[in-house]
Amino acid sequence: MREPLEETGRGGDRAKARHDVPEDHAREEERAARSALMRMAEAGDPVMGRLIAAYGPVSALEQARRGGLEPEFARREAELASASRRRLDLTRLVAGWAARYTDPEALFAAGLEQGARLVVPGDAEWPTQLDDLADRRPFGLWLDGRANLRFACLRSVSIVGARAATAYGTTVASELGAGLGERGWSVISGGAYGIDGAAHRGALAAGAATVAVLACGTDVCYPTAHEELFRAVRSHGLVISEWPLGCHPTRPRFLVRNRVIAALSRGTVVVEAAARSGALNTGGHAADLNRHLMAVPGPVTSETSVGCHALIREGRAVCVTSADEVIDLVGSIGTDLAPRPRGPVLPRDALNDETRRVLEAVPARGGTGPAAVAVAAGVDLTTALACLGGLAAAGFVEQSNRGWRLRRSR
Amino acid sequence: MREPLEETGRGGDRAKARHDVPEDHAREEERAARSALMRMAEAGDPVMGRLIAAYGPVSALEQARRGGLEPEFARREAELASASRRRLDLTRLVAGWAARYTDPEALFAAGLEQGARLVVPGDAEWPTQLDDLADRRPFGLWLDGRANLRFACLRSVSIVGARAATAYGTTVASELGAGLGERGWSVISGGAYGIDGAAHRGALAAGAATVAVLACGTDVCYPTAHEELFRAVRSHGLVISEWPLGCHPTRPRFLVRNRVIAALSRGTVVVEAAARSGALNTGGHAADLNRHLMAVPGPVTSETSVGCHALIREGRAVCVTSADEVIDLVGSIGTDLAPRPRGPVLPRDALNDETRRVLEAVPARGGTGPAAVAVAAGVDLTTALACLGGLAAAGFVEQSNRGWRLRRSR
Repeated sequence: MREPLEETGRGGDRAKARHDVPEDHAREEERAARSALMRMAEAGDPVMGRLIAAYGPVSALEQARRGGLEPEFARREAELASASRRRLDLTRLVAGWAARYTDPEALFAAGLEQGARLVVPGDAEWPTQLDDLADRRPFGLWLDGRANLRFACLRSVSIVGARAATAYGTTVASELGAGLGERGWSVISGGAYGIDGAAHRGALAAGAATVAVLACGTDVCYPTAHEELFRAVRSHGLVISEWPLGCHPTRPRFLVRNRVIAALSRGTVVVEAAARSGALNTGGHAADLNRHLMAVPGPVTSETSVGCHALIREGRAVCVTSADEVIDLVGSIGTDLAPRPRGPVLPRDALNDETRRVLEAVPARGGTGPAAVAVAAGVDLTTALACLGGLAAAGFVEQSNRGWRLRRSR
Repeated sequence: MREPLEETGRGGDRAKARHDVPEDHAREEERAARSALMRMAEAGDPVMGRLIAAYGPVSALEQARRGGLEPEFARREAELASASRRRLDLTRLVAGWAARYTDPEALFAAGLEQGARLVVPGDAEWPTQLDDLADRRPFGLWLDGRANLRFACLRSVSIVGARAATAYGTTVASELGAGLGERGWSVISGGAYGIDGAAHRGALAAGAATVAVLACGTDVCYPTAHEELFRAVRSHGLVISEWPLGCHPTRPRFLVRNRVIAALSRGTVVVEAAARSGALNTGGHAADLNRHLMAVPGPVTSETSVGCHALIREGRAVCVTSADEVIDLVGSIGTDLAPRPRGPVLPRDALNDETRRVLEAVPARGGTGPAAVAVAAGVDLTTALACLGGLAAAGFVEQSNRGWRLRRSR
């Protein structure tokens, strides 16, 4: 029952769709090519990003596999590198790509077997805000979980911070996550120990969607102690990654991954960060991408708040102390990224049948439990919960003290 | 032994000076008039401020005592009041002044008996930055303590905050006070429980000058539990007030007093403040007076940091976490209020004999204890300590790990 909310899914229909219509065939060929390119090039590699942008994924794969780039492209890359005084051994880079070539079909099948699905640019589920990353845009994203990625990220905030967080930090992170979740916002983080885990847990506790962006394959449980957490994230949100299944995390991958955490949401909150924390790297990406950068202050006697205070003091981050303050800020970016939702951000017609049935089972006033919604909509409880999460992220429904209800127009 | 550092003192020489020279006689007559006006009008009364500005203190006292203002002044005040839609019963106000008239000579003598001295505009010890308060400038200040007020305030920072401070707040306030003191800055505060007391104690622990600005007479110990603290402040700094001896504090007086705390220093640091704290009032004065306004963050879970976070979040205060950060900020205001001291801010010639002897006893390198300085300068230890405090505030000397030494040019 791992169907995405919308009919953008790549589940059982895929094999059929791939062979029926020529247009779909081309799209599936591109998808398979991207899957292979994700294995061949390291995520975030701007050379591969530009190669795909220039020739499309199928031709890019063809060039990468045979180890010979179009002369025009190779010349341009060499010029770019020398202009920025960067060393670029294009021959070795491409040879590396070729050496890591693996049959796209096999890769693809392996991913699906694990319950993961690949979402690529052009898919309805692709979060278009990632396009702001230009030539460092992910080649594609492997997704594992019940939520719809685009819906979940429409009204989302990233919460990041120290792995070695204090009790204060994890308390604040989980309260922020829960506060955002209760107000219909989803939480994006990195699935790590400390602040990340607390933020995910807070969102889950509020019944909200949460997205864990990993620096390894979605099937690799890192840190291992977060197995239970990732299971919960999958059932109410998504575990996603730019790395193919089986890939293990490395230090550079964490840093490369951070740009996706920053790009997916409307703003990033740094909860606790020591002077040289990786969370500051995510914050830097958020600022570079014109997202809101926020930081939570803490005791000045605490080493893990030094980075937050520096961000605030230097005017790089806004000081925030509650979910309301975060929403005050990111809600106002409406004109830049998405309209401030007075009601839902998508038309009802865009919903699939199942989701629409769930939406119709949600009362306008009061509130009702997910089990009652499931019965009224004629779906099972897990499906009802997943649909409700997606509907909440899209601004259709919200949770009150008395349960789920339609979201009121402001 | 309550002699100020400089020859601006009003001690035993006063009676002699008052009758010897006509010019001095006029100044002493003005001083006595201001002393009486401080008893008659409430501190900070802008009508009295304008009356003194227009006619001088002697004529102002004459008009206030007989209860009849110059018609020109009365007309202007009535116009001012009606223009600002403010109610002003000038007749009652002036009748109140007249009713509180007390013989200036007697008031004056009483103050001196208590060990206090009156400093008024025009005196060498008057801190001219108070002139920024315009018609709310204090009519005069009663001082009790060994430091020189103008010297002590030349390089000073105000630290204010909640009376009901947390352990976190008092720790931070005393560390800030000590850190500023160690770097040659004096600390101004309100002598209250909580943050104020901790800030004074921190400065005292660093051997620095500290100034307690009271909302009652300098002889009134409020809060009573601070008797010991005020004694220490008097011996290394000053207890000062715009209210005559014997006056008791009232809620409005605390608020009126706050503008003096803000005006005396180059910047005000709010350490802990709840949402409606009086410290925010002081902070507002600092900002209005173009002083630096700073706030120390704290746990977002703490009610007593809510006011600080609001100041930071709204961009009204700069987030500071250490004495170094405070000095980075207030040190740069040089062009506005005082030159950034490369060496001392006053020429050596401005020092009196005793202080110059103490200065000559301080080594350029290493460091020496106050007792050794006292012996070399031929003064007693208390005098040596008082002179060293004044010299430190004026930027001549500093304390190193090894004791007192000449301050190095930066």
